[in-house]
Amino acid sequence: MTGIVLDTATKRRTARNFRSDPISEDTITYILETARQAPSGSNTQPWRFIVVTDPEVKMKVRTTAEEGEQAFYETLPPERAKWYRKKGLSPNKPHLTDAPVLLVVLGDTAAPNWKPSVWVAIGYMLLAVEEQGLATVTYTPSDPEKVRVALGVPENFEVQTVLPIGYSADDKAKEERLPLEELVFMNSWGNGTG
Amino acid sequence: MTGIVLDTATKRRTARNFRSDPISEDTITYILETARQAPSGSNTQPWRFIVVTDPEVKMKVRTTAEEGEQAFYETLPPERAKWYRKKGLSPNKPHLTDAPVLLVVLGDTAAPNWKPSVWVAIGYMLLAVEEQGLATVTYTPSDPEKVRVALGVPENFEVQTVLPIGYSADDKAKEERLPLEELVFMNSWGNGTG
Repeated sequence: MTGIVLDTATKRRTARNFRSDPISEDTITYILETARQAPSGSNTQPWRFIVVTDPEVKMKVRTTAEEGEQAFYETLPPERAKWYRKKGLSPNKPHLTDAPVLLVVLGDTAAPNWKPSVWVAIGYMLLAVEEQGLATVTYTPSDPEKVRVALGVPENFEVQTVLPIGYSADDKAKEERLPLEELVFMNSWGNGTG
Repeated sequence: MTGIVLDTATKRRTARNFRSDPISEDTITYILETARQAPSGSNTQPWRFIVVTDPEVKMKVRTTAEEGEQAFYETLPPERAKWYRKKGLSPNKPHLTDAPVLLVVLGDTAAPNWKPSVWVAIGYMLLAVEEQGLATVTYTPSDPEKVRVALGVPENFEVQTVLPIGYSADDKAKEERLPLEELVFMNSWGNGTG
């Protein structure tokens, strides 16, 4: 059985390198319109978005994000730090200035069940980004408070992710997924489908 | 600008009443295949799924869920309880036995950033359900522990949602969404697009 949603989900892979080519305002609106349609607990729509295109603001987001990552990396146990290095991950987040647009997604911490709702909307956005031929990475800052303050966001909102949006310049293959047989049980835990 | 992802997101609305018509195994596989493709923190894929089709197990899920809701409703302040009643919400969850299939989505609480990852996958699932002409509600049990135990799920997993899947028998309109102008800022908080 095939369909566009599964095709889009399957094709989608994370990018951490972006071409500097600009992307149209219409495309950004398309992605945000998709998020806006998501369901939320009691329909509170606990999401807000900051579209960052100003190079100075992108740099500010990157700098504050990297400060948070630096502090986080210093707390890592040695093997974990090694694993991160092996994955090519580091406190440097050049994609936060390389991508033409950043979409900062905020969650209203006063709303019931706000976090699941916001992340459903982010799931919607990831598919919309892919459908538009663009790429992103769901970057979650290690210290979201720093980024919140840098953007003048009120205290009752929490930065959930900063999505750099652009054309991918990443040729890394999609990471492998576990087969359904290892993920799915019938009627109770342990009762496999494999 | 239009596209299938936005169209699907826009058409989708929550259903709490379901026809008893069976749905094909292929459709369930399609929905789970879509979830499987989601990205996750460090690609840990912290999601597991229990497909519940056995009427006795559905009843067990419903009964334990309703016990949790009953206890939750008893803690509600009077105005809040009134608001819930006005919305037609109650501790009764007949959709958990009416829908032909329940998809129980579990999160591996030992994985880094597991909750956002699982909810991105749930966002993917909601669009796949809609694309297949089916409906659901992202029911989040007030006492997920009870449901976990009833299904024999290990302690390190947490029930995130129980999605009743079936053909909608609900004629309620989609709840209104805020316009983008109220949700989006340019470059910093307060700098509106409207």
